[in-house]
Amino acid sequence: MSDTQHVAITIADIEAAADLLAGVAVRTPLVESPALNMRTGGRILIKAETLQRTGSFKFRGAYNKISSLAPDTRANGILAWSSGNHAQGVAAAARLLASPAVIVMPRDAPATKIDNTRALGAEVVLYDRYTERREDIGARLAQERGLAIVRPYDDPHIIAGQGTVGLEIDEQCQRIGAEADVLLVNCSGGGLAAGCATAIAARSPATAIYSVEPEHYDDMARSLDSGDYETNAPGAPPSICDALMAQTPGTITFPIARELLSGGLSVTDAEVRRAVRFAFETLKLVVEPGGAASLAAVLSGRIETRGKTICLILSGGNVAPELFAEIITTRAATEEPG
Amino acid sequence: MSDTQHVAITIADIEAAADLLAGVAVRTPLVESPALNMRTGGRILIKAETLQRTGSFKFRGAYNKISSLAPDTRANGILAWSSGNHAQGVAAAARLLASPAVIVMPRDAPATKIDNTRALGAEVVLYDRYTERREDIGARLAQERGLAIVRPYDDPHIIAGQGTVGLEIDEQCQRIGAEADVLLVNCSGGGLAAGCATAIAARSPATAIYSVEPEHYDDMARSLDSGDYETNAPGAPPSICDALMAQTPGTITFPIARELLSGGLSVTDAEVRRAVRFAFETLKLVVEPGGAASLAAVLSGRIETRGKTICLILSGGNVAPELFAEIITTRAATEEPG
Repeated sequence: MSDTQHVAITIADIEAAADLLAGVAVRTPLVESPALNMRTGGRILIKAETLQRTGSFKFRGAYNKISSLAPDTRANGILAWSSGNHAQGVAAAARLLASPAVIVMPRDAPATKIDNTRALGAEVVLYDRYTERREDIGARLAQERGLAIVRPYDDPHIIAGQGTVGLEIDEQCQRIGAEADVLLVNCSGGGLAAGCATAIAARSPATAIYSVEPEHYDDMARSLDSGDYETNAPGAPPSICDALMAQTPGTITFPIARELLSGGLSVTDAEVRRAVRFAFETLKLVVEPGGAASLAAVLSGRIETRGKTICLILSGGNVAPELFAEIITTRAATEEPG
Repeated sequence: MSDTQHVAITIADIEAAADLLAGVAVRTPLVESPALNMRTGGRILIKAETLQRTGSFKFRGAYNKISSLAPDTRANGILAWSSGNHAQGVAAAARLLASPAVIVMPRDAPATKIDNTRALGAEVVLYDRYTERREDIGARLAQERGLAIVRPYDDPHIIAGQGTVGLEIDEQCQRIGAEADVLLVNCSGGGLAAGCATAIAARSPATAIYSVEPEHYDDMARSLDSGDYETNAPGAPPSICDALMAQTPGTITFPIARELLSGGLSVTDAEVRRAVRFAFETLKLVVEPGGAASLAAVLSGRIETRGKTICLILSGGNVAPELFAEIITTRAATEEPG
């Protein structure tokens, strides 16, 4: 179903994106929790990308992409489709770059996400996700109005922008004298994974890199196993990780991931809930379910942690208060205390 | 009611504490939120001490104090009284220093705080806060068992340990080229305020320092105004800031505060709730009510922010999940959206 596109993204592209983002994106901290280290028997370094503008890493790629447009294209405006983090990241980047933004969002997206996107100055076009395809609406609108499309992951500038997360992780590890054995990256379409893998492979080639996805949405893991594009089974129950539900890896991101990743992990909704609660109780960080997948992998023993230095990215914190409240006040009967 | 004790605490004491804490305490990040800057019209630098061991700054002073004890005293054990953050900070520090810890806690303290303190290896002695005074029980137990008392704030080693927060703030400001016009410090007995004021007065003398307290518990603000120890009115309604309910400034902390602080601010429970919710929604940080007092002062216009660089400390994140859930899902009718 997908044509592979071999688009080379180099460490130089990521360094250029980092220069562009300096002083604009938040240089998010790499934090460490003695309690988490003790619990896992390893050294876990947490890139808190939840503290990025608009609460997720998505701002980085969006700003890098929109900056790359020719001045008149940018002034004419851009268009994106997203039900969540990409929408807000694009809207914020477009506003900073004085580019009018149109965001195509499903009519039943959470009201707060629609409101936030509008508050960032974007025009929101709603569609019915059961009868219409957002790509079709987006492409038609973009053509009618002459807008440049800002894709969520399958674009070299987007990937290079997200890769600055990996570059910062490497710099921050060096400053504290840490050498990462493993980097875990939450994965939907693979933009963050491909970008960070490119950065880390260049700067810290001994680090093994794994994608982390929700159960039933582990298309990247299965694609890495088979070496070709795998798609999630139709009719799978929705995951609590609404940000990680892409159906198949991207045509630009997958060739990069196939070359640079050691494999893919997956986590259950129950493991993700426990990780969100752990982040609240112990790390004191607000993480959305999809943003906590790698933390869930570490807490659930999906990867060996004892004696290892493991970097993970908390990739987003945009969670509805009602869901967050439910997660932190509910402890499954099967769970151990604490 | 209180005898003033002029105990000199110097920047050298704080630097010594910082050396001792290096590699033991978390060097918590100084974070910045473009959304908060835009909202306030200033540059707000947030010291996320919520990310400290045991979720508050209290570990710093406790570790510095217990380290200062003679080896046989330390081996014999220590005693502290606290219903919350000091209990956990002392228990964690005592365990690292192999000092048996006895913590006197009210019988009706939140079960999670008692459990956490026990999980950190401390012996918890419960008392009835309506019929017994914890200072009396603590002093009696300490004498019977020959335990060293680790006071919550009125101790030079405690104050110097908490002062390392101020030292780090100054170092982190310098690294990003920021000069703070104002430092806001949440205040109960005044250990954090006295320590940070000593550090900042030495390193950044142009910075004005203010304490922040809850409404009805603004004994420090009124004491700074009058120049003598003021006490909170009996029968005041309890504050949502359970960590900030001291009745009068400390006998060691107040002379320092009187010399170095520009004044004291106070915030209402409603302002604190809004700050906790803002930290959840926008900063993606978990803050307990008492830890959010300074953020509340900034968000509520209790201090001029426009064009100013203001540092504030999120001093603790130990909040019961049920209360946090209630705060983030409830928006008062009088509040503006967002």
